[in-house]
Amino acid sequence: MKNRVEIVDVAPRDGLQNEKAPFSTEQKLELINGLIDAGIRRMEVASFVHPKRVPQMADAEDVIAGLPDRADVTYIGLTLNMRGYQRAIATRDGGRRGLDEVGCVIVASETFSQKNQGQTIEEGISVASEIISAAHSDGLRGQATISAACGCPFEGEVDPRLVIDIAKQVADLNPHEIAIADTIGVGTPKQVFELFSALRRALPDMPLRGHFHNTRNTGIANAWAAYMAGARILDSSVGGLGGCPFAPAATGNIGTEDLLYMLERSGIETGVSLEKIIDVSKSLEPILGRPTPAMVSKAGGFPAPAQETTCVA
Amino acid sequence: MKNRVEIVDVAPRDGLQNEKAPFSTEQKLELINGLIDAGIRRMEVASFVHPKRVPQMADAEDVIAGLPDRADVTYIGLTLNMRGYQRAIATRDGGRRGLDEVGCVIVASETFSQKNQGQTIEEGISVASEIISAAHSDGLRGQATISAACGCPFEGEVDPRLVIDIAKQVADLNPHEIAIADTIGVGTPKQVFELFSALRRALPDMPLRGHFHNTRNTGIANAWAAYMAGARILDSSVGGLGGCPFAPAATGNIGTEDLLYMLERSGIETGVSLEKIIDVSKSLEPILGRPTPAMVSKAGGFPAPAQETTCVA
Repeated sequence: MKNRVEIVDVAPRDGLQNEKAPFSTEQKLELINGLIDAGIRRMEVASFVHPKRVPQMADAEDVIAGLPDRADVTYIGLTLNMRGYQRAIATRDGGRRGLDEVGCVIVASETFSQKNQGQTIEEGISVASEIISAAHSDGLRGQATISAACGCPFEGEVDPRLVIDIAKQVADLNPHEIAIADTIGVGTPKQVFELFSALRRALPDMPLRGHFHNTRNTGIANAWAAYMAGARILDSSVGGLGGCPFAPAATGNIGTEDLLYMLERSGIETGVSLEKIIDVSKSLEPILGRPTPAMVSKAGGFPAPAQETTCVA
Repeated sequence: MKNRVEIVDVAPRDGLQNEKAPFSTEQKLELINGLIDAGIRRMEVASFVHPKRVPQMADAEDVIAGLPDRADVTYIGLTLNMRGYQRAIATRDGGRRGLDEVGCVIVASETFSQKNQGQTIEEGISVASEIISAAHSDGLRGQATISAACGCPFEGEVDPRLVIDIAKQVADLNPHEIAIADTIGVGTPKQVFELFSALRRALPDMPLRGHFHNTRNTGIANAWAAYMAGARILDSSVGGLGGCPFAPAATGNIGTEDLLYMLERSGIETGVSLEKIIDVSKSLEPILGRPTPAMVSKAGGFPAPAQETTCVA
């Protein structure tokens, strides 16, 4: 089990949330079914946020109602407050399948937390505590993500001691795992290795999950650094879907096919088929009206396709 | 000096060689001047190949004749055979500045070497020996690149023992350095770390240079892995210019701005200005008629630009 990574595909949530192209509920369910068919066994399927703020998530309940009832797949919904949690838990009303897990977010920057969530970090931890406790009472898994962990758009550097301090407090809530998110894609492999190593030492028994954006082309390097420091759960988004509106040319999450390529060639098992993920990635392009940012779906896997014209140097 | 990396910008050669957009000699010299102004002190400026094979390099002699006569900059020309070498050394005729260094290439795959160069690996080493000896006699620096070192488009896996064996033979020629090239962009950080570590052990005093393509989004991770294994010379191409014709959607060399961003944020000195490299990168887009593949020139450096709309998770 040492050389195994659980890939959490976040395309249906983080990948789509800022996407301008309108994805219908049916198209989202096709995406989710494609991911399951490719071997993905855990994914973020929706977030419960105000539809005016994130229109792409307005049909969260409909998507969840249409999820295939697979016992071997874990569906996560993101909830930023108890109002969101109430919507998440309601997906199970009347004995319906609904969600298996809720995620909540603590921002590791006072300014970012206040500007985006209207709450202090302390309040963020308190909300996370409420959500995870409620989830446990309701028989759901609860996980916590510490976001902006590699840098903040307002404050710049984020002190790793702050991240570790938050993680320790979050660990007391007994979450399924703690995810560390480089929300704005500024992290570097040295930084990520040091941060995850410190977390590993501080919380030796807590499963760590890494969430990286490829905004500055460091995403895959950061994922590898997190793996090297002990993370065995990594987020990615098929096609590299996603991205923040503030940097239109920048990609979002690291691409599932790119992560998978690196892990497979490194002898790490994931249970996910690269070929099928590439098919899912390609199926998104007509909806998006543009190529996805991930690379392996264009370049192909290994061995590379041979051509006489290949340049030698 | 421990935390210092020499960035060799290969945009004028590897970046341009497969580029369809016609760059005039003047535009190439503008690019080279921009790189020098940004702090690049060593670069590949041309290759001496048949103009029918690589039309973009047809004006190699004109480019070299127009190079600024800077004592602090090392200009490298790539020579694949003695015919190429004769052209390289002729750039210094009549007391002209010309090139400072020639590079030669040994392909670490029998099939690739035969198909592309029409010679065996053994013959490749012999040609490299001839070129480096001639360079030394003529008062030029000579370096050798072992290409396809992370995988071959014809044979698939390349045995690292073959790369090390070639490197040992090449080391006897007393080159300025040995470069290890992932020519087709299939390498992974685990593989690169192991290969460079083995080379470091086999040739403890030989400077190692890493040349990575971002074809499958592993380029920056590979550059970091090479650094971690002791390489202190890394190639990149401003804008991430380059790419092989066999994979049209795939980018070429890792982008100088992306490499620089990672190194700078890791506390590693390069002497190169990120801001100025981004300017050079942006100046290429009107000539190319498309955005360059590098990411930091779009997303910006660190701290990231703040926007209220930034998504928290």
